[in-house]
Amino acid sequence: MMNDHPPHVAIVGCTGAVGREFMAILAERSFPMASLRLLASPRSAGKVIEFNGAPIEVRALDESSFEGVDIALFSAGGAISRKFAPIAVDAGATVIDNSSAFRMDMEVPLIVPEINGEALDAFRGPGVIANPNCSTIIALMAVAPLHRAVGVQRMVVSTYQAASGGGAAMMAELERQARDWAADRPESDEIRGRPYLFNLFSHDSAIDPATGYNAEELKMVRETHKILGDDSIAITATCVRVPVLRAHSEAINLTFREPGAMSEAEARQALAAAPGIRIVDDRAANRFPEPIDASGGDEVLVGRIRADISQPRGRGLDLFVCGDQLRKGAALNAIQIAEWLIARIGANV
Amino acid sequence: MMNDHPPHVAIVGCTGAVGREFMAILAERSFPMASLRLLASPRSAGKVIEFNGAPIEVRALDESSFEGVDIALFSAGGAISRKFAPIAVDAGATVIDNSSAFRMDMEVPLIVPEINGEALDAFRGPGVIANPNCSTIIALMAVAPLHRAVGVQRMVVSTYQAASGGGAAMMAELERQARDWAADRPESDEIRGRPYLFNLFSHDSAIDPATGYNAEELKMVRETHKILGDDSIAITATCVRVPVLRAHSEAINLTFREPGAMSEAEARQALAAAPGIRIVDDRAANRFPEPIDASGGDEVLVGRIRADISQPRGRGLDLFVCGDQLRKGAALNAIQIAEWLIARIGANV
Repeated sequence: MMNDHPPHVAIVGCTGAVGREFMAILAERSFPMASLRLLASPRSAGKVIEFNGAPIEVRALDESSFEGVDIALFSAGGAISRKFAPIAVDAGATVIDNSSAFRMDMEVPLIVPEINGEALDAFRGPGVIANPNCSTIIALMAVAPLHRAVGVQRMVVSTYQAASGGGAAMMAELERQARDWAADRPESDEIRGRPYLFNLFSHDSAIDPATGYNAEELKMVRETHKILGDDSIAITATCVRVPVLRAHSEAINLTFREPGAMSEAEARQALAAAPGIRIVDDRAANRFPEPIDASGGDEVLVGRIRADISQPRGRGLDLFVCGDQLRKGAALNAIQIAEWLIARIGANV
Repeated sequence: MMNDHPPHVAIVGCTGAVGREFMAILAERSFPMASLRLLASPRSAGKVIEFNGAPIEVRALDESSFEGVDIALFSAGGAISRKFAPIAVDAGATVIDNSSAFRMDMEVPLIVPEINGEALDAFRGPGVIANPNCSTIIALMAVAPLHRAVGVQRMVVSTYQAASGGGAAMMAELERQARDWAADRPESDEIRGRPYLFNLFSHDSAIDPATGYNAEELKMVRETHKILGDDSIAITATCVRVPVLRAHSEAINLTFREPGAMSEAEARQALAAAPGIRIVDDRAANRFPEPIDASGGDEVLVGRIRADISQPRGRGLDLFVCGDQLRKGAALNAIQIAEWLIARIGANV
């Protein structure tokens, strides 16, 4: 629980892809902190990581890790979150959790600050706040403003997801396969056991036997309903991993509730006015969102904005979005949640 | 015009990615030929290409190239087709054209043999037969059997297209960028002027100012209508190029005409019975169609077959398909058209 001091912050999973991004973004944004504690598995303990020029020693995560911590940023997988988030809360910390462990918990806010930050207004820490799934955040940055304006009845989403969603090891595997291929060596595939370079594959999360959808696709359905506070939106998604390093792309087809709900021009206006997104839509130059342009940036790029010719006028819209999976899809959104808490709730974090 | 001899065959564009594939497939399938003539631009004339162990000298394409030719396989772009296909037909040849030049011509059959081969029954050469767009062929191999069974009302397609669709030069650029990246050299991008390795981009065809759709997307709409003989199917597509070498993937969402039209089990049966496709759909092992598995093969792989949870029961279906763009998407389909002609029409080619 913070009082009148800037928060003591802990990062759980500091050596992972998202963990490193937490540190980069905290530094970039000069996030106000009384201290920063880096936590990881015992095998990383003792490692020294530099933050803003100062060395910080990584500590092994254990039951006593959260004494004195105000805000704990978790990104070490669902099992670690399930075990240690309650311990952190008991120690007085507010946990912002990047795993899926608590996202659908009725008591836990699931937040994209630009979309439903006000759902935090009733929050009083210590407690857990969940950071949504990366592809869901990136899609909703463009969909939410349109939904708010006219109501989305149905979404058909196809994703083009980056290696980073599979963690630092999957990013390294893609890079290693490129080096192996260029050197004419057999391509190492210890992470997935399959080629990734010059290939793509259905998202590597478990398939739900009842529906045939994978976990990533079902997250998009359920988390969208929770974030937008509207279970009536019909959603289907096909989630695919492509050989891109760290920005997700998504082709999104929307059906609005009413015929004539929104023209393409009106959609452009709504998107132009929405925070956190940038329209990249130059038809003459054939320049639209690309993962390489979204990578390392804070904004979700939105383009290929066009009225859907398969639906009555004003009833449907097609979009293509790209967003950095490690930033807006994970670490940045979590830190924006922390910033929202501090700005709006202050001492009650 | 063939008589009682196997056809004299010419390939226009023999040095391109599809041209090379024409030769590989003719050899593989022991396509019956009295002779094979290789035609290309003057800068390739004199080059010697081996076919079935015998050297064939490439000739410069000109007005006299088609004397004595029965079947001319064209893949040298729309401008070459528009100029030389009529010359070939005047010389007595039947042209099977891989460009988009004649596809929407009312007089020209647009053929995927497994789907609408019977549209050739009335054909009498010499004349032009058009080979459809690659992404359209690959999608329809899975969609047509379902449409025939219960009627498709609407399709939402997102593509993951390979470099090969942009030609041999684009494939080479992707490979070169991988070598440059691995060697820590600046990545050469003379073809597109942008990064392609670890990136993806909206399909590099011109955007139609009236609709905002690119040419590839509109081909899918129009060619689907022509091939299926049904203009009532509502179609939207988002066409994207991914860093994959030669097989296209597509996420396809279907709405059937009637609620309860087709269960997932019925869809699986219809797909299992359809020619030219192979179901790859192992939910337990998380193995579904991947471009690397479709590459070099004749079949379109179909998987992620599941009832669409965003629609009433039996009303919608999601699929993911992969097909070799150079083979079923281009050269193989063209040669299958030639085989159909010979088998069904024989001397009247």
